[in-house]
Amino acid sequence: MTNFTGSNFIAGEPSQLGATTFTSVNPRNKQAGSVAFHNATTEEIHAAVTAAADAFEQSRNFSAARLADFLDTAAAEIIALGDELLQTADMETGLGLPRLTGERGRTIGQLQGFAKLLREGTYVEAIIDTALPDRQPAPRPDIRRMRFAIGPVAVFSASNFPFAFAAAGGDTASAWAAGNPVVVKGHPGHPATSELFALAINRAITATGFPAGWFSLLQGATVEVGQLLVQHPLLQAVGFTGSLRGGRAIYDTAAQRPHPIPVYAEMGSINPVVILPAAITARAEALAEGLAGSATMGSGQFCTNPGIVFVQDSAETQSFIQNYRDKMAARPAGVLLNEQIESGLEHAVAATQARPAIHTLTGGYVVDGDSFAYANTVLQTKGTDFIADPALQTEHFGPVTLFVVCSSSDELVTALQSLHGNLTATIHAEPADLDTAQAYVDVLREKVGRLLWNGFPTGVEVVHAQMHGGPYPATTASSTTSVGYTAIQRFMRPVAFQNTPDALLPDALKNTNPLNIWRIVNEVKTKDAIS
Amino acid sequence: MTNFTGSNFIAGEPSQLGATTFTSVNPRNKQAGSVAFHNATTEEIHAAVTAAADAFEQSRNFSAARLADFLDTAAAEIIALGDELLQTADMETGLGLPRLTGERGRTIGQLQGFAKLLREGTYVEAIIDTALPDRQPAPRPDIRRMRFAIGPVAVFSASNFPFAFAAAGGDTASAWAAGNPVVVKGHPGHPATSELFALAINRAITATGFPAGWFSLLQGATVEVGQLLVQHPLLQAVGFTGSLRGGRAIYDTAAQRPHPIPVYAEMGSINPVVILPAAITARAEALAEGLAGSATMGSGQFCTNPGIVFVQDSAETQSFIQNYRDKMAARPAGVLLNEQIESGLEHAVAATQARPAIHTLTGGYVVDGDSFAYANTVLQTKGTDFIADPALQTEHFGPVTLFVVCSSSDELVTALQSLHGNLTATIHAEPADLDTAQAYVDVLREKVGRLLWNGFPTGVEVVHAQMHGGPYPATTASSTTSVGYTAIQRFMRPVAFQNTPDALLPDALKNTNPLNIWRIVNEVKTKDAIS
Repeated sequence: MTNFTGSNFIAGEPSQLGATTFTSVNPRNKQAGSVAFHNATTEEIHAAVTAAADAFEQSRNFSAARLADFLDTAAAEIIALGDELLQTADMETGLGLPRLTGERGRTIGQLQGFAKLLREGTYVEAIIDTALPDRQPAPRPDIRRMRFAIGPVAVFSASNFPFAFAAAGGDTASAWAAGNPVVVKGHPGHPATSELFALAINRAITATGFPAGWFSLLQGATVEVGQLLVQHPLLQAVGFTGSLRGGRAIYDTAAQRPHPIPVYAEMGSINPVVILPAAITARAEALAEGLAGSATMGSGQFCTNPGIVFVQDSAETQSFIQNYRDKMAARPAGVLLNEQIESGLEHAVAATQARPAIHTLTGGYVVDGDSFAYANTVLQTKGTDFIADPALQTEHFGPVTLFVVCSSSDELVTALQSLHGNLTATIHAEPADLDTAQAYVDVLREKVGRLLWNGFPTGVEVVHAQMHGGPYPATTASSTTSVGYTAIQRFMRPVAFQNTPDALLPDALKNTNPLNIWRIVNEVKTKDAIS
Repeated sequence: MTNFTGSNFIAGEPSQLGATTFTSVNPRNKQAGSVAFHNATTEEIHAAVTAAADAFEQSRNFSAARLADFLDTAAAEIIALGDELLQTADMETGLGLPRLTGERGRTIGQLQGFAKLLREGTYVEAIIDTALPDRQPAPRPDIRRMRFAIGPVAVFSASNFPFAFAAAGGDTASAWAAGNPVVVKGHPGHPATSELFALAINRAITATGFPAGWFSLLQGATVEVGQLLVQHPLLQAVGFTGSLRGGRAIYDTAAQRPHPIPVYAEMGSINPVVILPAAITARAEALAEGLAGSATMGSGQFCTNPGIVFVQDSAETQSFIQNYRDKMAARPAGVLLNEQIESGLEHAVAATQARPAIHTLTGGYVVDGDSFAYANTVLQTKGTDFIADPALQTEHFGPVTLFVVCSSSDELVTALQSLHGNLTATIHAEPADLDTAQAYVDVLREKVGRLLWNGFPTGVEVVHAQMHGGPYPATTASSTTSVGYTAIQRFMRPVAFQNTPDALLPDALKNTNPLNIWRIVNEVKTKDAIS
């Protein structure tokens, strides 16, 4: 078993210069762990980003194949951590071994998926417009463009996905795949898990001969560590998954830099679900069961948790809501990640309950006991009240469902139009609803990154077509995704070469197309060489 | 001839609610024009953005073909403005008819080029991963993603390109092509030119049946008009071309909104040129002549003006600089756009001259006379002094060249490493220099959006491979371009559809591929239908 040091890991080396420490807390019994983790100091933050910049001097010219080898090796080293990784994360998060096993598979899978993307090679988006020497009134030059890595990237781990959105999660994988060194700010909820990842990643770095500064881990339970990291002049971009408040603070800090940098923050989302009348008629029981499963998955601590459900009023609808309420009340309260999540949820639900015209059907309280826990909660309001009160769009990060009961389909459309940005929206309908559904699709398309049909939003498939993003406040960068393979574009930047000799061009742009990638040459997609 | 009204144009209608007005000034004789242009009021700004949002309710579902028809019609209506457009712009900017004729051609060409891109259709970037119902442990859903328009866009016109970076310039063309209504903040230097564009665009809107709010023109000589526009809650993005100070102010305003929006600001650039020894040996005269032509083009008022030239010290280099100085001194001072540019240039050069170790070889003064003008100016410093003083990277917006004379190629590389972000960099070399040149390419690639070989940076080809951007302070969004056809990506946002019935999918994502576009289906580029 690993002897945890409680260190930061700066370019491969453990470092604990700081005087202040913190411990993780087992959410199942609220007991603090035995290892003191050292908050990163200003010097350590500086050392990590500087080492990343030094590493970039080498890695910026690494081939895609070499980057792919690193990603595969990192995946293998994470697997080699074995059950200790699962057990450590379970102790720190209470998420349970089945869920964590699945999340590990996804985390490994996306590292390997990016490796595959790199080996195919087209991701650099080579576009070539060759010279037209005889064009009048002036010749057209040869211009060739592709994407390159940008330099050191900071990644802020999330609490709720200690593998998939953490030290070697999606943001790190995509930043690495793009060719960038990464400095991870570990989440203070799972510092031992982060340390295990750092050990595995550093083994992969050694094994593949990558520069030591390709990865650093900063531990920190204070706001200052993150703020100082984002302010570092050598940093080029930030990936973040977490709360609206935390994401916005980092966005603001980055925007106020002398040299602003992009912040790809994935923040709050209430993930509206629309259930059309025919769907309730056809499959009320399955819907209630599926929705309750999705709403309580991971104790409701998913950024894609279905937090708000729009229905049209009817006896059938009332019965559906009652059935759902009963199911939620009957399900045991899950373990929450930590005390901050529990108290945050308590305050958020209380604030919603204090709004006019909100009815609590079940739950609405912290569950006393050994664990951090909050009762599965169902709230209800009317369409008109929802439309009138933007505060009802506040995220409740936990197992909470708010039903918005509309008196007509027109009122329901108006309620959807009033929505702020979200990661997802879902429509449940039957073939008979198709004509009606078009209006909902049309409205919801403006509000989200992903629109689901007859499904549940928890579970985000890691594929090329995925779009895990959406308008503010879901993210600060709605034209990009944090899940799926186009995420690599966040951490690359195009450069065009004009009339540059073939010998000086990167391989992706050379006449012979030595990488055999798809390119757009004079407006035609081709793998052909340029003669 | 047009009877100029001095109005704003809000959704097709002239409007002059404001009490304060401004006039344009002919830079050739410093005489104010006779038409009083009304600064847009808060109500007019609100009306323009609201009309744009209303227009978007219709236009968001317009086909690419329909958008293309509008762009072609707008191009035709601009041509139909005839010589009056050229003469009006010349009177307001002093840029001269030949240059303005060329710029009109480019402006028309990019509208038509975007129309062609739309008709081809692949620009929506459709990516489809079909379902795997038998996958274990859970089925994979069908996910299909494409890009959509985002909504009302504000475009800030530049002073130095009254056609190509103005009312119907590149930002407007790309925002329209993406499917977005545009509210233009006209530059106060050429309000009559803007009014002509508004008339032409409104005719195109009427002819094609587009909603009136698809375009509005706000006039304004105050900072407030732009600030209020950027703060409007219904605005989704901003395009800007202008000064670093102006662009940063708009970026800051947008970042501080309750709902931040992206600002695509193209700002300052000094466009470094590296001339290797063999190039001077081989073609000193042609280089000096070409560089002087580029540095004085448009009186030096190009964002791609070559403002700084790195050379290695030698007798040949000294002779080259002397020859360049003589050529610059012999060229008549061109007309500057306006008093602000003249005084800004005077202050910027004076500030540089006040730095230690700067030598003025020629120029460095405002030219007295009827016109706004500044003497062609050549300054010189040493590599070590340049490296030590970041203030020497301040842009001089006008016909000013700073030579940085380095004592060795190592010093030259160090000087290049110290550069901030730029739109372009240029290397002049001979075949004998290829090995040396690789190091310069390698350093400069990190600093710019476009790297030229044996050319001059003024003149930005409107092609698919173009990258007119670069790291801050050249732009606020270095992963995007403001020239060329990938600029359309700035104003679109991907949305993914999960398990959505074919009948509810946009055409670009339907099984039959009715638009016959290139799509990536299960990782393969294809135009085939999905069976």
